[in-house]
Amino acid sequence: MSDDELRARAQRLRLVLADCDGTLTDAGVWFSAEGELAKRFSLRDGMGVELLRNDGVPTAIVTRESSEAVRRRSEKLKLPFHFDGIREKFAHLPHITRLTGADPSEMAYIGDDVNDLEIMRAIAEAGGLTGAPADATRAVLDLVHFRAERPGGHGAFREFAEWILSLRA
Amino acid sequence: MSDDELRARAQRLRLVLADCDGTLTDAGVWFSAEGELAKRFSLRDGMGVELLRNDGVPTAIVTRESSEAVRRRSEKLKLPFHFDGIREKFAHLPHITRLTGADPSEMAYIGDDVNDLEIMRAIAEAGGLTGAPADATRAVLDLVHFRAERPGGHGAFREFAEWILSLRA
Amino acid sequence: MSDDELRARAQRLRLVLADCDGTLTDAGVWFSAEGELAKRFSLRDGMGVELLRNDGVPTAIVTRESSEAVRRRSEKLKLPFHFDGIREKFAHLPHITRLTGADPSEMAYIGDDVNDLEIMRAIAEAGGLTGAPADATRAVLDLVHFRAERPGGHGAFREFAEWILSLRA
Amino acid sequence: MSDDELRARAQRLRLVLADCDGTLTDAGVWFSAEGELAKRFSLRDGMGVELLRNDGVPTAIVTRESSEAVRRRSEKLKLPFHFDGIREKFAHLPHITRLTGADPSEMAYIGDDVNDLEIMRAIAEAGGLTGAPADATRAVLDLVHFRAERPGGHGAFREFAEWILSLRA
Repeated sequence: MSDDELRARAQRLRLVLADCDGTLTDAGVWFSAEGELAKRFSLRDGMGVELLRNDGVPTAIVTRESSEAVRRRSEKLKLPFHFDGIREKFAHLPHITRLTGADPSEMAYIGDDVNDLEIMRAIAEAGGLTGAPADATRAVLDLVHFRAERPGGHGAFREFAEWILSLRA
Repeated sequence: MSDDELRARAQRLRLVLADCDGTLTDAGVWFSAEGELAKRFSLRDGMGVELLRNDGVPTAIVTRESSEAVRRRSEKLKLPFHFDGIREKFAHLPHITRLTGADPSEMAYIGDDVNDLEIMRAIAEAGGLTGAPADATRAVLDLVHFRAERPGGHGAFREFAEWILSLRA
Repeated sequence: MSDDELRARAQRLRLVLADCDGTLTDAGVWFSAEGELAKRFSLRDGMGVELLRNDGVPTAIVTRESSEAVRRRSEKLKLPFHFDGIREKFAHLPHITRLTGADPSEMAYIGDDVNDLEIMRAIAEAGGLTGAPADATRAVLDLVHFRAERPGGHGAFREFAEWILSLRA
Repeated sequence: MSDDELRARAQRLRLVLADCDGTLTDAGVWFSAEGELAKRFSLRDGMGVELLRNDGVPTAIVTRESSEAVRRRSEKLKLPFHFDGIREKFAHLPHITRLTGADPSEMAYIGDDVNDLEIMRAIAEAGGLTGAPADATRAVLDLVHFRAERPGGHGAFREFAEWILSLRA
């Protein structure tokens, strides 16, 4: 895709969607005797969320799992929307548009695994942007506009945010 | 072993057995002032469990340790069986067959350490499949049909699952 | 900068300032269902704090976040000052001088991200010393007197401490 | 040192001493709002403790910190002795001998940092064995009989145990 087209897509962005496990985290989940205990996030990614917000672009998490820990992280980052327990992300896309007011052509999506493929393809085809952590699954890496140098949970989202911001500059 | 033989073995699979520590985790265990606090699992591996289940093959954990955290993980993954506190895994094999109805020739096993060797040899000789994370101990790596590129706790099980599924395709 | 100048700066040091997230940690934060659960520090860095203190140079954390966990770590290390919730680190510099009695020319600062840039430039220009973990953001790495070989949370601070001590020897 | 001498030393071993932070762990410590929350150990190292015990050689932790978490780990491993809060490890050596009945010439020690140097030198000179994780500090790596390929907390102790056992075989 030409740089001009990437820039045009970045400039009309109204929403960045981020998969959680494997993207905002390294896919790790800590279990204790009580069940799911914790997930690990990166404050470098948190700074990416803030840099995007300062440029007028909010971020929202779209995740298959239903995790209170992730809800707390979303709240801490002051994300305006939170989509969890989403088994079929692509099927949920119209609902996301309804709630956020952003058309898929005005979305960016970063994800790492097979359950991200369909929604990513839809957003890319509608005229949005896609990205993946360095350690995403092969099919995802083959699809995306942007491949981060860092793996999920260790700055991949931050790189995606900075790439978007550089295209909007 | 010929690809045809590997395919034949994969196609008759009825059960995947996974060692826990060093295979589904990176062998780490977090201790707090109260004792064992947590272990870290990978949701990419969890997706591997689901992909196998969708193809009709259940997974079960077989572990030497007795850990409530691992039991919670097993429940979260909806694994139909859980074998823990197993000091002698090989000796436990007939019991596993009795409970699951799967013959060793219909099993796959992924493990990383010396206490996995005997059961892996038995399953391989019976006509089953074996695998290991990239960072398994030397004796295990020398034995197995499949060596993952990723270490334990970081996607090794997922690779094993995808390898099995590609052989069944 | 000449070795003589670096030595002169090290010898007049009265305070080492350390960013927390990404510097004393690898930027990770663990969230549980109750919100922020924990951050991970390195005891090798803790030994660096102690080696500096034995040479008469106290350390203090300067962090954007307000985290009880970091306060507990600061207390455990017996740091004489703690600056948290600091959105504008550079603007806070006069306050730090007032409280600690150290002039910016008598400070060293180690940090990793864009919100560390302004205070680092000010300290460097005043005649102090600056350092960064190996995985700091590019703009920070371009600025500093010392680049650690290890990343944040994994010994970067310890290296910075030993570099300072070697200059003071 | 000749292989014969190493074998002689290994064969008279009656006690393996292990530093904790940076050796049995990767030097990480998790802090929560309540203070120290947890440390991470490796079950591969735990298997090393057991392999040594099966060969008649007990292990004990010798650590500068006083951590309930480490005490719990020590108990879980059924270590017969536990030495913590030891600011001067070398000065504590006679006390260790008194309690365990092992002379320094009958000890092995694995450690990673400067506070391990003096006791390691004493044990090496008395006729004992020394080892270090791959990521130990330079001065320690220069001193020891055995350098592990893996870093602390990720199997270094296990390698040390297997090296000792191979010398005793």
